[in-house]
Amino acid sequence: MKKMNYQNVKGTQDYLGNEEAVRRNIKRTLEDVFIQYGCKPLETPILNYTELLASKYGGGAEILEEMYTLTDRGKRNLALRYDLTIPFAKVAAMNPALRMPFKRYEIGKVFRDGPIKEGRYREFTQCDVDIAGVDSQAAEAELMTMALDAFNKLNISVTIQYNNRKLIVGMLEEFGLEEEMTSKVILVFDKLEKVGVNAVLTELASLGISNSLIQQIKAFLTDKGNTTVSYFEALAERSELVKQGLNEVQELESYLDTLGVKAQCQFNPFLARGLEIYTGTIYEIFLADRSINSSIGSGGRYDNVIGGLMETNEKYPTVGISFGLDVIYAALSKTIKQQEITDVDYYIIPLNTLNESLLAAKYFRNQGFKVELELSNKKLGKALDKANKEGIPNVVIIGEEEVRKHQLRVKNMDSGEESMKSFDFI
Amino acid sequence: MKKMNYQNVKGTQDYLGNEEAVRRNIKRTLEDVFIQYGCKPLETPILNYTELLASKYGGGAEILEEMYTLTDRGKRNLALRYDLTIPFAKVAAMNPALRMPFKRYEIGKVFRDGPIKEGRYREFTQCDVDIAGVDSQAAEAELMTMALDAFNKLNISVTIQYNNRKLIVGMLEEFGLEEEMTSKVILVFDKLEKVGVNAVLTELASLGISNSLIQQIKAFLTDKGNTTVSYFEALAERSELVKQGLNEVQELESYLDTLGVKAQCQFNPFLARGLEIYTGTIYEIFLADRSINSSIGSGGRYDNVIGGLMETNEKYPTVGISFGLDVIYAALSKTIKQQEITDVDYYIIPLNTLNESLLAAKYFRNQGFKVELELSNKKLGKALDKANKEGIPNVVIIGEEEVRKHQLRVKNMDSGEESMKSFDFI
Repeated sequence: MKKMNYQNVKGTQDYLGNEEAVRRNIKRTLEDVFIQYGCKPLETPILNYTELLASKYGGGAEILEEMYTLTDRGKRNLALRYDLTIPFAKVAAMNPALRMPFKRYEIGKVFRDGPIKEGRYREFTQCDVDIAGVDSQAAEAELMTMALDAFNKLNISVTIQYNNRKLIVGMLEEFGLEEEMTSKVILVFDKLEKVGVNAVLTELASLGISNSLIQQIKAFLTDKGNTTVSYFEALAERSELVKQGLNEVQELESYLDTLGVKAQCQFNPFLARGLEIYTGTIYEIFLADRSINSSIGSGGRYDNVIGGLMETNEKYPTVGISFGLDVIYAALSKTIKQQEITDVDYYIIPLNTLNESLLAAKYFRNQGFKVELELSNKKLGKALDKANKEGIPNVVIIGEEEVRKHQLRVKNMDSGEESMKSFDFI
Repeated sequence: MKKMNYQNVKGTQDYLGNEEAVRRNIKRTLEDVFIQYGCKPLETPILNYTELLASKYGGGAEILEEMYTLTDRGKRNLALRYDLTIPFAKVAAMNPALRMPFKRYEIGKVFRDGPIKEGRYREFTQCDVDIAGVDSQAAEAELMTMALDAFNKLNISVTIQYNNRKLIVGMLEEFGLEEEMTSKVILVFDKLEKVGVNAVLTELASLGISNSLIQQIKAFLTDKGNTTVSYFEALAERSELVKQGLNEVQELESYLDTLGVKAQCQFNPFLARGLEIYTGTIYEIFLADRSINSSIGSGGRYDNVIGGLMETNEKYPTVGISFGLDVIYAALSKTIKQQEITDVDYYIIPLNTLNESLLAAKYFRNQGFKVELELSNKKLGKALDKANKEGIPNVVIIGEEEVRKHQLRVKNMDSGEESMKSFDFI
């Protein structure tokens, strides 16, 4: 019993010290970039009706199994949100009078009761931007450029892989796959990078896919020529869907070209993405050096979700992108110095001069500085130790002599230099 | 069934548009002030073991009834946190090697399945600062000054009422109240302002408090002379606890005096605070004009919680303050103009010039401006309408003629003035 009190729940953790300072800076950087791109803030509840989250426009079977559910005192069936996409779509569906395009960002906690591995928790923070009401691939281009800007500001080198679901779905259709199998096959494709071609083909066979179809898929997956868009040109002549996909990819590429970011973006015809909801462009962001193998951001176009929730089944063009805070932190912690990050400009050390030190803290804060006042009566040596360990740049020492002389002793912790400053408030 | 999809769960809501922009600005202002006061960020999980949250060092019986509970796939008994205090105390208890004082802030969602009224939700955001490891009343003085600074930056005029639990507890002891009734009587005191003296006395009688004791309490509650600290001086001669409380109040007042904030702080001997955990100074922040009756922030000293969780029962001096985001928003929305808040500096309107407009957006963003690019092909009139409604200061119109002339048309929406600017990127 005793131990239980101190444990965190499996899959959850506390963030403190340097780690949380870095995480806060990531969140602020992302938020600032989102705002720079004209996105408005949105905040949706963590508690939702199970029925909404379990809708077919939600996260799909795998995620639903990982959903935390509960009942409130009013006997409502509730669940904790597992992403920020379905709550966004709900807001758009609930507010048909919203001015379009509706371009919002949300940074918040989501919950999945699934397997834990390094960098994957059950309670974690997502940072999402979604745009509803834009048909043009310029929406995708904006989100991809925004992602590049954000990672640039975070000093993280990335590449974005992109594809278009219409190419895959049209191709599978052209190969003769029954429509109801499409999603299942795409889910298997999504594992390609992790498990390799053979494992993918084996799993496809286990789904009951015919041998001749598997041979066509194998040819596609192993053809060296298919890493360029032109691979799909022949198919486009036979498939309207592939043709649409091709047009969309070419439109997107023209914008990426215009914006001068094409070198950081890479067409990948094997990119599949796990979620069923995607209908067009999809993308995943990877570290340029692939020192972390999984993607550090991803998203795509899902034109049927909002209309589906509204039960009008109108097409509601929508594109989104999602950044995972934990994996970005993991990427950053590989590169940044392990030194403590300090927010403190001045650390004031009272030596039996608490009243005067309170005044000094007020004085520096009024000037806009970040000030920590030593409140626990530390001796000078211990206080200087702390300043060193935390990388605080300046300490202010206020002893009884300083008070008598109306002076402050300011010590620069880098150079070790001390200077006396006159202050008439003490 | 259909309607269910669109509803939010009772007691939860979406925040968007202007309201969320204001809320974000409140959170950022508070966070900046917290940082200026030397507080470090902390992030604790929403999911906790029920056993931790239900501990006697937690929120008390009333809050426990309102706790959302659930079971995860591993059959653990979990609950959603109902405040940020017990998670903070848990972190301190779990990490005995933490450098003291441990001064942290956390801004996050908390959950209470309780009655709903205006401005009170079941899922809401708290903004907390706590300091562990400081005995001196200077900790309280710092937190109270910090609160005044924060509300000053938010342009909200407030007063802080303060009291000391030792005065109340010592007085009740001196009146002859049995110790195990103290918490119950304090809970009744806490309703004084809402229900008045007579209702308080009636409720005390219903608790089985003797008539003679009620007469003493009545004398205290109705004595005009007791609004100053000096009321307690006679009692202090008979009660060690009252004497300690008096010393603490006087120490606190000397710091408030030094800091020049005493005029905004007011001693209130009837201030009780609902939570059992408080052991010393308590305070509540009110709007100066009392246009909202409930407090917009509150806190106090709770020296027994961390030691209690550690099961060492050591005294672990700790002080905290908590701000409610919803009630601060309510206060602000009474005063600020109802005009839309815009984050956008330039709104770029392409007239069949999407490629060039993407470049223009990139150009202005690289200069640090916040830019919204019209992506949904709005006609000029509709786009200008939107700019007006959202209070966007500048629009950039890029038509085919502008592209031919390598120029941008910039329109100041306030003055209506238009100017042409040469840009060599188009």
